Amino acid sequence: MISIEELDQKAQQIIRQAGQNAYQKMENDYQVDTKTNYTDLVTTIDRENEQLINDQLRKIDPDSQILSEEGFGDQQISNMQGHVWIVDPIDGTMNFVKQHNNFAVMLALYVDGQPTLGYILDVINNRLYHGRKGAGVYANNQKISQPADLGLRESLLAMNRILTLSGDSALKKIAQDAIGLRMYGSAGIEMIGVITGQLGGYISNLKPWDLAAGRMLAEELGLVVKSIDGSSINVLSSNLVLVATRQVSRDIRQIIN
Amino acid sequence: MISIEELDQKAQQIIRQAGQNAYQKMENDYQVDTKTNYTDLVTTIDRENEQLINDQLRKIDPDSQILSEEGFGDQQISNMQGHVWIVDPIDGTMNFVKQHNNFAVMLALYVDGQPTLGYILDVINNRLYHGRKGAGVYANNQKISQPADLGLRESLLAMNRILTLSGDSALKKIAQDAIGLRMYGSAGIEMIGVITGQLGGYISNLKPWDLAAGRMLAEELGLVVKSIDGSSINVLSSNLVLVATRQVSRDIRQIIN
Repeated sequence: MISIEELDQKAQQIIRQAGQNAYQKMENDYQVDTKTNYTDLVTTIDRENEQLINDQLRKIDPDSQILSEEGFGDQQISNMQGHVWIVDPIDGTMNFVKQHNNFAVMLALYVDGQPTLGYILDVINNRLYHGRKGAGVYANNQKISQPADLGLRESLLAMNRILTLSGDSALKKIAQDAIGLRMYGSAGIEMIGVITGQLGGYISNLKPWDLAAGRMLAEELGLVVKSIDGSSINVLSSNLVLVATRQVSRDIRQIIN
Repeated sequence: MISIEELDQKAQQIIRQAGQNAYQKMENDYQVDTKTNYTDLVTTIDRENEQLINDQLRKIDPDSQILSEEGFGDQQISNMQGHVWIVDPIDGTMNFVKQHNNFAVMLALYVDGQPTLGYILDVINNRLYHGRKGAGVYANNQKISQPADLGLRESLLAMNRILTLSGDSALKKIAQDAIGLRMYGSAGIEMIGVITGQLGGYISNLKPWDLAAGRMLAEELGLVVKSIDGSSINVLSSNLVLVATRQVSRDIRQIIN
């Protein structure tokens, strides 16, 4: 059976290949459809990338389950036993279409529910953030150190549009207390912000594929990944998620409670 | 007397030099102070850059007035007659300190009140956006074409934190109607977004040095730069500013009126 270290090497190749596919075609070589509404886009590149990634995962890890955004993975994943790969073929599709920038490809392996491998590829900067449980987190070949444990009033915070405009008074106070508020429109780019210390926290509504890789990398770096109410994360069902330094997490819990 | 074309060449050298100074020292070679409150930072690099830029402007254009953020320019500028240089030595100082990314150096020349030269240097990407009235806008050596005239529901919009959290119902509707909302924390980076078509609009409270260069470049590209109420811009006194495509500007005026 293939080892985790070998899967790590192969997964890095697979995600780089998906990144190249998106990069080569982003100028005009794709079609766009809407999903639930006019702000929810999918392109033929999302679908191509997902098939490309899933096909190769099936070859290197045939007994695994695959949970992926655009429907080419396993249809029903109700448990996290064994190997579960979680795939986001393009995260930040809106930015991909409108900006040709600020989007990512994301991939994670959970083993018996444990975050084990994580990958976020910032395609435009050609920088792969990757980690293996117990072996640290890297940006390409450079090891990332644990971000400084700053509090909310010393930290930039990212929050998505829905939460920022919700009118919820606790969320508003959190957004106002931070030293600055940022909104990049890609969970992957925002997760990179937190793991590199450029952001002290990120609050958003996240699906499994938005969360899986960033959670793995953030936890490996000693950051907090929790539901906003402080409860533990379930990657299959958690929705409103905070990724932050310990101190930002404490400061936010104090505002919420 | 030195021509506008010669001033353009010299100004490009000056702003590149200020960018290099910031880049070389950004890892740790500076001190930080707060200005009006804990979210309003200034560093020794802001001050160094401003002195470096102003000293050289005085040499190449001795009869001009200089309006600059950190107090090394002329103290009272009440009219825009003759040559007025407007200087932002580091725009996005918070990002400079916290992210080592997403900040800019900005410079503009107004002649008898007319936007004539404009420069925004994205330091980390080493990309200088520059324009001369009637001669087009460039990113380094590449000419930028006029962005597509998309409407609000097809456009990403940037809005600053104060406006987004203000609770104002018209601003909230504008932020919700856009296809997506973004917040980068640097007027320069956000202006670059609009002139390259990555954003369809940007609404913010802007000081003269936040506005002067971006306004010059945006107008040269046929974009709209107005006060949010639709009135004309006065670079010395306008505050709440919209930079946008014509169609986004129309869509926003319809929401406000």
